[in-house]
Amino acid sequence: MGDQEVKLLGVWASVFSKRVEIALKMKGISYEMVAQDLSNKSPELLRYNPVHKKVPVLLHNGKAICESLIILEYIDETWKSGPSILPEDPFARSTARFWAKFMDDKIHPAIWKIWGSRGEEREKTIEEATEHLKTIENELKGKKFFGGDEIGLVDIAGNFVALWLDVILDLVGIKLLTKEKFPRLSEWTDDFLSNRVIKETLPPREDLLAIFRSLFGQSN
Amino acid sequence: MGDQEVKLLGVWASVFSKRVEIALKMKGISYEMVAQDLSNKSPELLRYNPVHKKVPVLLHNGKAICESLIILEYIDETWKSGPSILPEDPFARSTARFWAKFMDDKIHPAIWKIWGSRGEEREKTIEEATEHLKTIENELKGKKFFGGDEIGLVDIAGNFVALWLDVILDLVGIKLLTKEKFPRLSEWTDDFLSNRVIKETLPPREDLLAIFRSLFGQSN
Repeated sequence: MGDQEVKLLGVWASVFSKRVEIALKMKGISYEMVAQDLSNKSPELLRYNPVHKKVPVLLHNGKAICESLIILEYIDETWKSGPSILPEDPFARSTARFWAKFMDDKIHPAIWKIWGSRGEEREKTIEEATEHLKTIENELKGKKFFGGDEIGLVDIAGNFVALWLDVILDLVGIKLLTKEKFPRLSEWTDDFLSNRVIKETLPPREDLLAIFRSLFGQSN
Repeated sequence: MGDQEVKLLGVWASVFSKRVEIALKMKGISYEMVAQDLSNKSPELLRYNPVHKKVPVLLHNGKAICESLIILEYIDETWKSGPSILPEDPFARSTARFWAKFMDDKIHPAIWKIWGSRGEEREKTIEEATEHLKTIENELKGKKFFGGDEIGLVDIAGNFVALWLDVILDLVGIKLLTKEKFPRLSEWTDDFLSNRVIKETLPPREDLLAIFRSLFGQSN
């Protein structure tokens, strides 16, 4: 793979950029991270993702692939060596895609709504998030990771639940993802965060906390 | 395939159900359409799509696959005979997925916003829809269909643009998708609608117009 150029236009603390980094590291692909400043978008970002102008963008030998879940499928289809991100079986693949989409459509917005709300409205956003988290708690029953014994598409898509969610709840001052209420999600979080590639790739919790504090101020 | 049971829980006029029907017919798969009444959801729908409780749901030998774009990928991966819905090459696949997602994330909501708005607000929704339609007009340059010479994932995902959009604009009394403003999309619409499978599958324009009128009343 020495003749391959792999670049990632990304942002250090971005949930979506980190998904791609996890996948590349799982597959053992060397890549250059080209950090983006979203307040002053680079000509490279505007050129390679003219439609959405968002990170992450994977550049593979000059070809641009956008949208994090689509990038994960591209990586899995392009580099067959290393652990698989999606399973082989079409039904298992559809199940993985379903839950990865659920992370993006339901879990991710629900968590951000907690952060953006106050008072009574926040109570409602917590209820909504709790309901969606219970849905994935239920899906994890009897399994170590979403796809079975190994980290796969849904776990990578859910990196947000394992780390960012906890940081946000900490800043907001809410205990939500407790071992009592969410025993499977709590175990999953521990298993996910103790994986070598994940540990190497995700930012340290304290750094993320500091950055959130500095970016958004204390939220309460 | 005589030993395979393929059922589709769907709704007659649904853009999303029709995507699945197109794909099944393209592949030559016999299926039973089980019409759903969304105002009184069936035990079957609640059982097989407990998370979203939405159509379409594909039941293949009792296994349920939900979310129309995910179902399209499942069909393509399961029945290798017949025309391909996604291309072989990973980069071409990622491009197809990108535009199919764009149909769902941008085009579809923009069109519904036109329908749901009035007066000045409607002017804004038309501007927004025009901008997104120009993006796909541009993507079609130099190609017959989104993936090349044959109908594929993005065209099927865009069935809405070829038929429902025209019906909605007719009811609303707006000329938007003209040959002058959108020459490529206009040609694409003609090519798409004159395809044998598409003609067989999509509802007749007049029937759709009548149903929209009866369901929603004249909008202006």
